[in-house]
Amino acid sequence: MSDMTSTADAPRSPGRPRSVRADEAIIEATLDLLAQGNTIESISIEAIAARAGVGKATIYRRWPGKDALLRDALRTLKGNPPEPAGRSVRDDLILLVGAVGHHIDPRAERIMPCLVPEVNRSPEQYQLYQNIIEPRRTLMREVLRRGVRTGELRADLDVEVTMAMLTGPMLVQRVMRWHPHLDEATLAEQIVDGLLDGIRAR
Amino acid sequence: MSDMTSTADAPRSPGRPRSVRADEAIIEATLDLLAQGNTIESISIEAIAARAGVGKATIYRRWPGKDALLRDALRTLKGNPPEPAGRSVRDDLILLVGAVGHHIDPRAERIMPCLVPEVNRSPEQYQLYQNIIEPRRTLMREVLRRGVRTGELRADLDVEVTMAMLTGPMLVQRVMRWHPHLDEATLAEQIVDGLLDGIRAR
Repeated sequence: MSDMTSTADAPRSPGRPRSVRADEAIIEATLDLLAQGNTIESISIEAIAARAGVGKATIYRRWPGKDALLRDALRTLKGNPPEPAGRSVRDDLILLVGAVGHHIDPRAERIMPCLVPEVNRSPEQYQLYQNIIEPRRTLMREVLRRGVRTGELRADLDVEVTMAMLTGPMLVQRVMRWHPHLDEATLAEQIVDGLLDGIRAR
Repeated sequence: MSDMTSTADAPRSPGRPRSVRADEAIIEATLDLLAQGNTIESISIEAIAARAGVGKATIYRRWPGKDALLRDALRTLKGNPPEPAGRSVRDDLILLVGAVGHHIDPRAERIMPCLVPEVNRSPEQYQLYQNIIEPRRTLMREVLRRGVRTGELRADLDVEVTMAMLTGPMLVQRVMRWHPHLDEATLAEQIVDGLLDGIRAR
């Protein structure tokens, strides 16, 4: 697990993959096994290799171990993070909040919620989960810090709590449709404007 | 499932239970079966009766069906909802936000996350989940509406979005420790004050 404790986005694979198709088959096999209800703990490199139709050595040439492979596999569920335009803090936050809990792969709906008990049980898997989401948190952190610098946001802003306040409502709505009557199409804007303006009467 | 579509808190059991111990054994058996990884769909009244050491008729004398029993079983994971004092909207919200995602039963950690895929798949189970959380949402809704009436909160408040904004950040922190550096002991207060005051520079 030592490879997971360095910074989240350090490159893992020293060489270039010889075949993108093998890479994709390995990632697909990993996600299929997770979507079938297998736990992170129970999945073996052997099982992934067998399902992908490659040898174990092919996997180890591309990833140093199971955790690095799982991190890459789980990240593909989300697709690429959005790119803030850098003009208005409000617009950038709406873009980032709108991407929270959005997955481009339908297997995510089966995989992600059931990771939670594992993540709570194991420090290694908690670190894996943090490594998956930290790059997106970094994007939002930079937008908020920029807002403080430019004077758009209050100088005493608690950036980490604010990120939780922007992310949490969208995440529970996307992952479990927490409230049946919220409109996902407008929710990102409602969250950002609600938090910018506050709810206290003035 | 028709018994689940009426209001969330209507009484289900026409007669008083003859034995509280049988009630408890049935609830315990249901929670044990869920904590072992059984899905709501796969759990049968037969299996619950066998584990609880009672006959099926004993269960049906107390609950009209599996859904009503599951709702009561899952609600016991949470314990009783807190009782707002009704003086300050801020204090009442901190009390209610502090109870979000708090379970008195450790089996909740295994049961609740894995319900999410089922809830997303089945309209009946989504309704069951809504019936479990709606009484707590009602408490928060009443505090927010009171704040609008008393002038503590803005007159144009979107009560439903505000509830998601108060609940979501605490829920993701409690359920999956979303951010490793947030302090759960102060988070309810930080969320409520952050949302009351807003983050825009003034």
